[in-house]
Amino acid sequence: MLKGGYTGKILRVNLTTKEITTEELKTDTAKKFIGGTGFGLKYLLDEVDPKVNPLGEENKMFFAPGPLSGTSAPCASRMAVVTKSPLTGAVGMALSGGYFPVELKFAGYDMLIVEGKAEEPSYIYIKDDIVRIKSAKKMWGMNTLDTQRYLKHDLDEQNARIACIGPAGENLSKMACIINEKRAFGRKGVGAVMGSKNLKAIAIRGTNKVDIGDEEAFDKARKEMLQGMKDSPVLYPEFSKLGTPMIVDAINALGIFPSENYKTTGAKQYTKSLGAEVSKSRQIASEPCYGCPVGCSQLKLAQGNTKYIGKLSDPEYETYYSFGGVTGVEDIDSVITADYICDELGLDTMSTGVTIAFAMELYEKGLLTKEDTGGRELNFGNHELMIDLIKEIAYRKEGLGEMLADGSKALSEKIGKGSEKFAMHVKGLELPAYDPRGAKAHGLNYATSYTGADHNRGYAFQEIFSIPVPKAYDRFAIEGKGELTKWNQDVRSATCDCGTMCAFLLDMAVAGMALENTANLVNGASGLDLTPDDVMKTGERVNNLARIFNIKSGFTRDDDTFPERIMTEPLKGGESKGQYISQEDLDTMLNEYYKERNWTEEGIPTKEKLEELGIGYLYNMLK
Amino acid sequence: MLKGGYTGKILRVNLTTKEITTEELKTDTAKKFIGGTGFGLKYLLDEVDPKVNPLGEENKMFFAPGPLSGTSAPCASRMAVVTKSPLTGAVGMALSGGYFPVELKFAGYDMLIVEGKAEEPSYIYIKDDIVRIKSAKKMWGMNTLDTQRYLKHDLDEQNARIACIGPAGENLSKMACIINEKRAFGRKGVGAVMGSKNLKAIAIRGTNKVDIGDEEAFDKARKEMLQGMKDSPVLYPEFSKLGTPMIVDAINALGIFPSENYKTTGAKQYTKSLGAEVSKSRQIASEPCYGCPVGCSQLKLAQGNTKYIGKLSDPEYETYYSFGGVTGVEDIDSVITADYICDELGLDTMSTGVTIAFAMELYEKGLLTKEDTGGRELNFGNHELMIDLIKEIAYRKEGLGEMLADGSKALSEKIGKGSEKFAMHVKGLELPAYDPRGAKAHGLNYATSYTGADHNRGYAFQEIFSIPVPKAYDRFAIEGKGELTKWNQDVRSATCDCGTMCAFLLDMAVAGMALENTANLVNGASGLDLTPDDVMKTGERVNNLARIFNIKSGFTRDDDTFPERIMTEPLKGGESKGQYISQEDLDTMLNEYYKERNWTEEGIPTKEKLEELGIGYLYNMLK
Repeated sequence: MLKGGYTGKILRVNLTTKEITTEELKTDTAKKFIGGTGFGLKYLLDEVDPKVNPLGEENKMFFAPGPLSGTSAPCASRMAVVTKSPLTGAVGMALSGGYFPVELKFAGYDMLIVEGKAEEPSYIYIKDDIVRIKSAKKMWGMNTLDTQRYLKHDLDEQNARIACIGPAGENLSKMACIINEKRAFGRKGVGAVMGSKNLKAIAIRGTNKVDIGDEEAFDKARKEMLQGMKDSPVLYPEFSKLGTPMIVDAINALGIFPSENYKTTGAKQYTKSLGAEVSKSRQIASEPCYGCPVGCSQLKLAQGNTKYIGKLSDPEYETYYSFGGVTGVEDIDSVITADYICDELGLDTMSTGVTIAFAMELYEKGLLTKEDTGGRELNFGNHELMIDLIKEIAYRKEGLGEMLADGSKALSEKIGKGSEKFAMHVKGLELPAYDPRGAKAHGLNYATSYTGADHNRGYAFQEIFSIPVPKAYDRFAIEGKGELTKWNQDVRSATCDCGTMCAFLLDMAVAGMALENTANLVNGASGLDLTPDDVMKTGERVNNLARIFNIKSGFTRDDDTFPERIMTEPLKGGESKGQYISQEDLDTMLNEYYKERNWTEEGIPTKEKLEELGIGYLYNMLK
Repeated sequence: MLKGGYTGKILRVNLTTKEITTEELKTDTAKKFIGGTGFGLKYLLDEVDPKVNPLGEENKMFFAPGPLSGTSAPCASRMAVVTKSPLTGAVGMALSGGYFPVELKFAGYDMLIVEGKAEEPSYIYIKDDIVRIKSAKKMWGMNTLDTQRYLKHDLDEQNARIACIGPAGENLSKMACIINEKRAFGRKGVGAVMGSKNLKAIAIRGTNKVDIGDEEAFDKARKEMLQGMKDSPVLYPEFSKLGTPMIVDAINALGIFPSENYKTTGAKQYTKSLGAEVSKSRQIASEPCYGCPVGCSQLKLAQGNTKYIGKLSDPEYETYYSFGGVTGVEDIDSVITADYICDELGLDTMSTGVTIAFAMELYEKGLLTKEDTGGRELNFGNHELMIDLIKEIAYRKEGLGEMLADGSKALSEKIGKGSEKFAMHVKGLELPAYDPRGAKAHGLNYATSYTGADHNRGYAFQEIFSIPVPKAYDRFAIEGKGELTKWNQDVRSATCDCGTMCAFLLDMAVAGMALENTANLVNGASGLDLTPDDVMKTGERVNNLARIFNIKSGFTRDDDTFPERIMTEPLKGGESKGQYISQEDLDTMLNEYYKERNWTEEGIPTKEKLEELGIGYLYNMLK
């Protein structure tokens, strides 16, 4: 019944038993979960006990592109990895673009499941039907760029596409990511899960093409999407040229660009130091993902100071904040350098920067002393020390490196003494680059996302960019944000996380047509007959599945919250001055949100809802 | 008449006029010059006025692999680049291995000639018959590793093989090299010549194979070579496992491992800090060149100190000395790091290290002061400052960077005040990793090599490794060294530089069979009928051609000499204690050497010799 888009095959590699098997992708699974995160989550729920140690042998990793990956649909070159996160203990899910995702499709698979734990450092090599577990002893210790270069040489396969971990993943830093090319499956410590399995890399070479079930329908949907992209006033004129850092100025203008561990957000502006003008002066080339006509990834070359000059990297907006504003750093070349080093070492730039910023505040408050820092001044804005700390974190260097290596939550637990007040995370995941005090639905999404404080699970572009889809919202208002957050989360989950379309399309260009177009593209490719509502339901299904996993992992309504600062300290300056989210506001939003979801007041999915979503069988898990 | 081995085609790219043409390789050229350096030198003499500014538009670059490159002959994956050197003003010639050299053959060319100067940063893209000059504006400023990665992405051609320059070449450092993968056309500032032409990179993708004229004869010769390699007591048991750094211990034992700018050679030992045992502890993987069963290139991973930990590079023996002994540095991880950074920035590790060592001695002697160093202690052994200086050199940072950027000779000219006494170079090329005071023919080769102090133009393995081919020699003796040096230079030029066989074979494994086997392999591949003596004559031809070019560039017998220290300071300790090379010794050796070459007492080739070599037409140049 699946006529294209899907390969119909799932690859399973057990690193303990060395068994390599394939199994059929069921049509019902495709229909209900579309692909990507949907596939990963369905299998996570089916196969992984929510109580397992995320870094234990029983945890699994599900790497899944979508039905459009590897087709000529624009901006669908993405893949999700789903696992239990060591950073949060909740569902860990991260997405990446580039070329690695489509290569798995070209090799003939809709999903790669990795389970067990290799006895010695290993990598998985997939060349179409040939799949091998091979020794990675020679690569253990290599950074991610060296690993990719060396492995291609060693395999004599320059066309292989590789995802791998760096020293941070090997050393089980809970902020470790997985790198492919210079792109990252960034957050939630998914790199540490690979490290815990002794899995250094996955190298794929695929030589098949992805079939299209109904060329005509697919082409029509594709053209509609391309037209929608062209019609966007932002996508090509600005986003394509500047990439995500183009919004530094806008977010500063809104007064929600997080500054100095969220202490001075709004009161301090970073437009001059990190804004579009400076950013453009460092920009030299774009590096598009597979099949992307936009090419937002912009390589930037550090200038000036010989210490940083010549470093080339493509920091996203989020990295401008995590190594810029939130650490108080105003030197863009150090931000580029920090991004480069994080890529090399395999560290999430966001969690790493925010954790360093947290340590800076602890130092300012005397909760970390010169004894802890080895005599160094850990003050806000100290970019040289920031760069040193990144390396120390990846290698868990005795002292600060070891203390910071597992992120903000772990650091606050180590320090105690009320330090948790300044630990900017939800469920253990560090806060992204939008201070939620000035964008309440964006904030509610941080509080309720199944992965922790994750802007990518329900980006409130209505608040951030004033895009009135499905309608306009006041960013300071509390009312209506439950409804909006559900909508954002479900649409994002469906189109981006399952359909694996690039999120930037949704946020900036084609939000209004996303559901319908995703249905049309997937139907054209696969021969399925999804309606826009079916697509939306998939998003809802995902958020319910994940919620069940998290509840069984021990999370409750109490975890749908904010760091104390967000709830008690009004913003001190800028366009959102005076804003904060009180406990009462949060309760109001949560109540509305749960109600919208048809969850109980405790945030537990109801039997009715699960049955409506066709996953009633999971209700037993909640008993 | 050329039945294989050669493609028969030369590619010429003029960056000024943008003309791209091909021309025939004449059989007579193949017969007389074999390939590689021979081709390059013949064309250099024919087309480039020896008096041109090396960094001017009139200089040219000749990139030539050999007739065996791209065949199944082992260890022939090499290419020469010939140009006028900006560092020495003499013939500049450097070789590299890897995959780039054979890719030019696969694309269908025996030589690539680059002439003129591009108006803006450019690169040459060669895909078989399709050749383009394209803008490299986006890559200007990128380091060599980023350039290769980015260019493959931009061309959507992961199989392209790329040679490129880094910031050092762009900034016209006379120590700049050309990098392909992590291998280098290392010395004589060939990277600056590319930079002066605004040529950032050459990217090649070839899809043809190299024909073999006489399969049977070729296969026989190939098997003989492989057997010779197997029979070597050193090649596989040691060299293959450890690479060139395996000789650190041996050279220290001979008392000729240069120490602290040659000041304490022999008196200070580096076996414990840089010897095989330490080296092995850093070694994780080998990375062979195309078609090489040996794979001497050994990737090493820096350990320990977080500053260096994780850097991966493959420093050769010469880099152990240039960033180790000669700078007084005993930290192997800083040597690995220095090697990595030089590769990134496109700097010759040897000249760079020796120039830094020279500056260290100048600081010790008060000829450079804290005013020059920006308050920093530029003492021997200071590896942190050494690493900083590499970057400052590549970017010509005001102060020490600018002062050191053009090598030792230029530095001594800038400083004056008798500093030239401590400038360890011949003809402007920094001395290699064997103190000539304890190996006289090795030294005579430094004095007479057409490229300056270049161990690779006539390596005296008879002295260094006691290999009695063509017979045994006492390394301290003066007599007989003229004869030996001529033999070493001609054999090396013929088999390695023209035949483009790897030098390590000759030096360590198959010296006794090199001439005959090269003849057999080339004949088998091409259908030529060279005798071993013809091959030897090609080597002699090369050394005469180059001598003529140098004489016309202004070099005389007076330039065939040593730095003052070599001629006046006896070695202070170790197994070569008391040795030095007096002016009288040098004169004795030079006289013998010139006589062996049938050159005049002034070192000028005679008409008789040139006619004997079939290059009598060049005698007119000497008038």
